[in-house]
Amino acid sequence: MKALQYRTIGSRPELVEIEKPTPAASEILLRVTAAGACHSDEFIMGVSEEEYFFKPVPLTLGHEVAGVVEAIGAGVTDVEIGESVLVYGPWGCGRCYHCAKGDEMNCEKGMRAPGIFSDGGMAEYMIVDDARHLVPLGDLDPVTSVSLTDAGLTPYRAVKSALDKLTPGTTAVVIGAGGLGHVAIQLLKALTQSTVVALDLGDRQLEFATEVGADHVYRSEPGAADSVKGLTRGLGADVVFDFVGIQPTADLAAAMVATAGHVVVVGVASGAVQIGQRTVPLDVTGRAINWGSRAELIEVVELAKRGAIEIHVERYSLDEATEAYDKLHAGEIKGRAVVVP
Amino acid sequence: MKALQYRTIGSRPELVEIEKPTPAASEILLRVTAAGACHSDEFIMGVSEEEYFFKPVPLTLGHEVAGVVEAIGAGVTDVEIGESVLVYGPWGCGRCYHCAKGDEMNCEKGMRAPGIFSDGGMAEYMIVDDARHLVPLGDLDPVTSVSLTDAGLTPYRAVKSALDKLTPGTTAVVIGAGGLGHVAIQLLKALTQSTVVALDLGDRQLEFATEVGADHVYRSEPGAADSVKGLTRGLGADVVFDFVGIQPTADLAAAMVATAGHVVVVGVASGAVQIGQRTVPLDVTGRAINWGSRAELIEVVELAKRGAIEIHVERYSLDEATEAYDKLHAGEIKGRAVVVP
Amino acid sequence: MKALQYRTIGSRPELVEIEKPTPAASEILLRVTAAGACHSDEFIMGVSEEEYFFKPVPLTLGHEVAGVVEAIGAGVTDVEIGESVLVYGPWGCGRCYHCAKGDEMNCEKGMRAPGIFSDGGMAEYMIVDDARHLVPLGDLDPVTSVSLTDAGLTPYRAVKSALDKLTPGTTAVVIGAGGLGHVAIQLLKALTQSTVVALDLGDRQLEFATEVGADHVYRSEPGAADSVKGLTRGLGADVVFDFVGIQPTADLAAAMVATAGHVVVVGVASGAVQIGQRTVPLDVTGRAINWGSRAELIEVVELAKRGAIEIHVERYSLDEATEAYDKLHAGEIKGRAVVVP
Amino acid sequence: MKALQYRTIGSRPELVEIEKPTPAASEILLRVTAAGACHSDEFIMGVSEEEYFFKPVPLTLGHEVAGVVEAIGAGVTDVEIGESVLVYGPWGCGRCYHCAKGDEMNCEKGMRAPGIFSDGGMAEYMIVDDARHLVPLGDLDPVTSVSLTDAGLTPYRAVKSALDKLTPGTTAVVIGAGGLGHVAIQLLKALTQSTVVALDLGDRQLEFATEVGADHVYRSEPGAADSVKGLTRGLGADVVFDFVGIQPTADLAAAMVATAGHVVVVGVASGAVQIGQRTVPLDVTGRAINWGSRAELIEVVELAKRGAIEIHVERYSLDEATEAYDKLHAGEIKGRAVVVP
Repeated sequence: MKALQYRTIGSRPELVEIEKPTPAASEILLRVTAAGACHSDEFIMGVSEEEYFFKPVPLTLGHEVAGVVEAIGAGVTDVEIGESVLVYGPWGCGRCYHCAKGDEMNCEKGMRAPGIFSDGGMAEYMIVDDARHLVPLGDLDPVTSVSLTDAGLTPYRAVKSALDKLTPGTTAVVIGAGGLGHVAIQLLKALTQSTVVALDLGDRQLEFATEVGADHVYRSEPGAADSVKGLTRGLGADVVFDFVGIQPTADLAAAMVATAGHVVVVGVASGAVQIGQRTVPLDVTGRAINWGSRAELIEVVELAKRGAIEIHVERYSLDEATEAYDKLHAGEIKGRAVVVP
Repeated sequence: MKALQYRTIGSRPELVEIEKPTPAASEILLRVTAAGACHSDEFIMGVSEEEYFFKPVPLTLGHEVAGVVEAIGAGVTDVEIGESVLVYGPWGCGRCYHCAKGDEMNCEKGMRAPGIFSDGGMAEYMIVDDARHLVPLGDLDPVTSVSLTDAGLTPYRAVKSALDKLTPGTTAVVIGAGGLGHVAIQLLKALTQSTVVALDLGDRQLEFATEVGADHVYRSEPGAADSVKGLTRGLGADVVFDFVGIQPTADLAAAMVATAGHVVVVGVASGAVQIGQRTVPLDVTGRAINWGSRAELIEVVELAKRGAIEIHVERYSLDEATEAYDKLHAGEIKGRAVVVP
Repeated sequence: MKALQYRTIGSRPELVEIEKPTPAASEILLRVTAAGACHSDEFIMGVSEEEYFFKPVPLTLGHEVAGVVEAIGAGVTDVEIGESVLVYGPWGCGRCYHCAKGDEMNCEKGMRAPGIFSDGGMAEYMIVDDARHLVPLGDLDPVTSVSLTDAGLTPYRAVKSALDKLTPGTTAVVIGAGGLGHVAIQLLKALTQSTVVALDLGDRQLEFATEVGADHVYRSEPGAADSVKGLTRGLGADVVFDFVGIQPTADLAAAMVATAGHVVVVGVASGAVQIGQRTVPLDVTGRAINWGSRAELIEVVELAKRGAIEIHVERYSLDEATEAYDKLHAGEIKGRAVVVP
Repeated sequence: MKALQYRTIGSRPELVEIEKPTPAASEILLRVTAAGACHSDEFIMGVSEEEYFFKPVPLTLGHEVAGVVEAIGAGVTDVEIGESVLVYGPWGCGRCYHCAKGDEMNCEKGMRAPGIFSDGGMAEYMIVDDARHLVPLGDLDPVTSVSLTDAGLTPYRAVKSALDKLTPGTTAVVIGAGGLGHVAIQLLKALTQSTVVALDLGDRQLEFATEVGADHVYRSEPGAADSVKGLTRGLGADVVFDFVGIQPTADLAAAMVATAGHVVVVGVASGAVQIGQRTVPLDVTGRAINWGSRAELIEVVELAKRGAIEIHVERYSLDEATEAYDKLHAGEIKGRAVVVP
C-alpha cells in the first residue's frame, strides 16, 4: 500500500510503497478515508537527530485519521466491519490513573500516538491498537471531519477548561486564527456569551477570523494589549488562548490578561507565560494544554453534527501529500490540509 | 472448580462443582484470592421470578473480587501472569460517553457486572472481560482489601461527590454504620474537617461507629433530626448519607438537611428523598449514587495503602459461603463477610 | 405615595396611599421605575392565616424592582443619586457563610426579601437596605429589564448549576414555558449546544416556546416521556427543569431523566421528585433551586445587554396593578406583567 | 493612641502617638487585641519612592488584625459592642463582580487593604470600613488567631484551589516552611491524603516542617527535584506550592511537577514559573494566588476552632514592635510575630 513516511531525519517526507498490515488479536485494521496534516508533523521533522524522541524512522505520518473498519483481531468485540470512525489519537496504556479517566494524553507511560510514536494514517490502511480508540462518525463526511481529532479536540479542551471563567460579560482573546485558532473562535461563539477577540498577523487571517465569528480583530503586536484593555474598561481579557506559543505571543497574553484571568498556551513552540506575583495580575492562572480526552472527542463530534463548528479544509490526494506539507511549511494553508487516499 | 451459585429463583445459594473456564482472546482468567458477600446479593435473591432482570440462573455470585492473574487471552497486553489485582466491578461497554470517562457504572448499554449480570467471583476461578477492569493491588492483603471494590468504592464516590459541600465547619451525617457506612465514616474523617455524626438502630452499631471515628452517634429515629439541629445552631446537616435507603431513613435525611445542603441515597431499597420547593429547605440537592468510576477505585486503593481506611472483615471458606450469606441475611455480620477460596 | 398592598389575609391586593419613606443611615431610597408581578405573590396571597410566615400585613408587594436612586443615608458610599439600578431581591444578613459567597438567598438568618419579608416595590418609592443590593442597569430599559431580577435570575441559576451535565450532544427539557420557563429556553440556547425540548399544556404556550427557541415541543402529559426517549436513543433527558413543580410534572421529570441525569425543581408548588435507588435511573441528582446569587444577577444583566435573553413583558400602570394580578391569577399573562409607576 | 507607622520611605517603622479615630456612619472602631507582622510589610518598606504605590506615608502598618468592637457608626447594624472579631483584610468595593462573590482581593477597583492602602492595625485602635469585613472570633485567643487572616487564609486558598488535583495517592510539595508554608503543611495534612513534602534551606526549618506534619523534607536545591521524582515512581509532584517566589524556587517547582500537575506561586517576589509547551510537562497549570475570599476566612477560622491548624507565634508589645520587624527582616522569626497592644 502507499504511505507517506518520514524516512531520513532532517529531510522531507516521502511517498513509498509498504506492506499492508494485519491486525493482531486486540487490533483493528482501518481503510483510511482521510488524514490531516498538522504543524506538529512539521515540528517532528524539525527536531535534530540528537533530540529526536519519536518513533524511529521510517515513521508513517498522520495523527488525525478517519477510516472504515476493514478487519478486526480475534479479541475485538462490539466493532462492526464497515463502521465509519474517527481515531482518538493520544493513545495511552488504558489502565493508569489518567487513562482510567479517559485522559490518555496524560498517560503515565507516555502517549503512543499514531503518526508520532507509532505509524499513522497518511497511508491507505492503518492499524489501531484498541477498540476504545475508535469514535463513531455516523453520517459525517470523513474529509471535513477528520481534523476534529486534533484541530477540533485541542481547542475544545482549551475552551472547555476555561468555561468557568467565561461567564456572561467576559472577554476571550484568541491569538492565532489558523488551523486550531479558527476552531477556537467558533467554539467560543457556540459555548459562551463572551466577547471574542482574535489577533493575527495579516489582513487575510483577520478576515478569516471575522468570517468564523470573531467580534473584534486586531493585529498581533504589543499594542494589541491596549486595544483589549480599551474594550474591557481597562480590566483586560478574562481568558487568552495562545495558539502560536512563541515568546512574543506569550508575553502579549500576559500583558492583556485581567486580574483573576487565565492564559492557555496551546501552540507547540518554545514560548511560555510567566506565572508569578510580579509578572501577571493577581490570581492569574496559566495552562499548557495538551490535546484532549476520549469523552471530549465524543463531545466535539456532537458539535460537528449540530453544525456548531466547521473546520475549513483543503483536500489533497496521497500522491499530492508531499505538496500539502510543503504548503503547510510555507504557511499557505487556510484552515487544515487533508489527505484523501 | 467449586463455585457458589444462585440456581433456583427464590431459594438460597448452593456450592456446586463446575468446569474451570478458559479465557477468550480479550479475557483474563483469575485465580480468586477473595470475594466479598454483599447485601446486593441478598437483593438479587429476593427478586421474584417476574421481576428478575439479572443473568439468568445459574448465576455464580460475587461482585467484589480479588485474584491473581492465572492466564490471559491472545489479545491481552500489559498484564503479567501472577499479578495480584482487584476487579473493577461495574463493567461497561468501554466506548460510550460515560465509559469514555471511566464511569462504566453508567454505561449506555447497561452494566455487565460480574456476580450480577455475568458470572462472578465466589468460585476458585473467574473470567474478567478486559484488562482495564484490573486494578493492581500491590502488597495489600486480598482478604482485607477485596471489599474496597464496592464497600469502599461506593461510599468513596458518595463522599467525593459531596466534598465541595463539606468545607470546614460543616456537619455530615451517616445513616447506617454497616458494611458501607462504617467506611463512609472513615472516609469523612480522612478527607474532611467536618463534624461526623452516625445514626443507627442499636448500641452495638453505634459503638462500632464511634470506634471507626464518628464524633457523635444517635439512634436512627425521628428525634435524631432535633439532635443534629442541636449540634448545628439549628441549621441542620450540610450533607446526609443514607446507607439504608428505606422511606423512614430518607424522610429523616430530609428532616435534618440544612438550607443548600445535600442528601445522598446509597442504600438499595425503595425509599426516596423528596426534592421539591415545599419538601426540603431551599436549594437542597439529592443524589442516588451508584458504585463508582475506575479512577475512583484507584484512589480508594491508595487510601487503603495509606491506612486511611480499613474495612472490618469476617473470613469464610468457600465451603462456609452459604453460612456467610445466612448470617448476612440475619444481620449478624459486623462489617463485611469475605469468602477465601 | 401610591402603593399596592396586601392588607387582609385571604383577600386581593389594594392600591393605597401611604407615606413616602426616608432612608436610614445605611439605606437607599429608590424612585421605582418598574416592578414585576410574580406567581410567588399569588402564592403569598394564597397562604392561610395559620401558615402565613411573611411580613405581617400590610405588605407592599413587589420583589422584582428597578429604580433610580433618589436619596441615600449618611453611611452609604459609592452610590450616585440618579443611578439606574436593579434591586437584588434575596436580601440576607451579608455576614454569614452563605452571604459571604454572595448566596444571600441561602442566608443563615433567612431572607429579608422586599415584597415578601419587608415592603417591596409596587409603589412610587422603595427603601433598599444596603448598597450591595443595587446592580447597575446602565442604558437598559427598566421596564423590559426589571424581571431579570427573578424571572431571569432564577432560571439562570437553574441552568448554570446544570451546565456541567449539558455538554454537546445532550438533551435538556423545560417543563412549563411561562414567565421563567421561556427565559430558561433562551438561556439553554445561549449557553449550551444541547437539544432543547419544551413541554406545556396548550398550543399557545408551545408556540411561544418554539418562538423563543425550543427545538422540539410536546404537550406536558405522561406520553411526553416516550417522546423524549424517542429523541434520545431511548436514553432520556440529561437535564429536566420543572418550572411548574406540581406532582405530575415532577413525576414526568423522573420518568424521562437519563442515567446520571439531573432534575431541577423550580416551580414553587408542592410536588417533589423522588430521588432514590428504585425511583430514578442510576446516579440521578435532583435540586430544589432557589433564586440566585449577587454575581449571577450581574451575569444575567450582561446577557440582557448582549441581547442573549429577552423577557416578554406586558405593561401596566400602578392604577392597573390589581388588574395585572387578576390576569396573572387567571393565567392570562404571556411572559411577565410589569407595573410602571 | 500609640501606632506603628511607616513615615519616611526607605527608613524603618516608628512608634508614634496619634489621635484615636472616630467611626463614620458606615464604620466600626476596633480596640486592637493583636496585629501580625508580615513579610509583605517588609516588601512595602523596600519599595523605592518612584515605585511606591501604597497609601502615602505616614502609613500605620498591620494588615493582620484582631480586635474588640469599641464603637459603631450610625449605619452599622447587626454588630455588637464588645464582639471579638478578626478583620478580613483585602477590602474591596463590595459591589463589583468579584466582590459580589466575596473575592474582594480581586476587586475591580483595587484593594483598599488596611496596613497597605489605608491605615492598619499596629495601633491601639483601628477603623474598619464595613461590617462585612468582621469575622466573629468566638472564644479563640486573638493572639494565636490573628494571623489566620493572612498567614492562614493565603495558604488555605492555595491549598483549596488545588484540592481537585490532590486525590489520594498524589504528592504535594511545599517550598518554604515559614510563616505561611508551615500552615500549608498542616492544611495539606488536614484536608488531603496526599504525601506532603517540604523543602527549605536549613536544618532548623526542616525540623520545623517535620514537626508540623511533613512526611518528607529535603533541602531546597536543584537536586530536590530528583528526590521528589524518586518518591513518585519518576512521575513528579502533582502540586507544588512555592512560598518563596524567587526564580530558583519557581524553576525548582517546574523541574519537579508531574504531567497534568499544578504549581501555585504564593511568595511575593519576582520569580515566575514558565507555563509553556516546552517548559513544563504536558497539561501543567500554574497560579499566582492572592490572599483569599471572605468565605474562605470563615472556613479557616473553623479549622482553627477544630485545632486542625495552629500558627506558631512570637509575642511582642507595641513598644517592642520595631524590634519584631527587625527580627523579621533578619529572618529570625519562627512562624509569625504578633504585636499585642
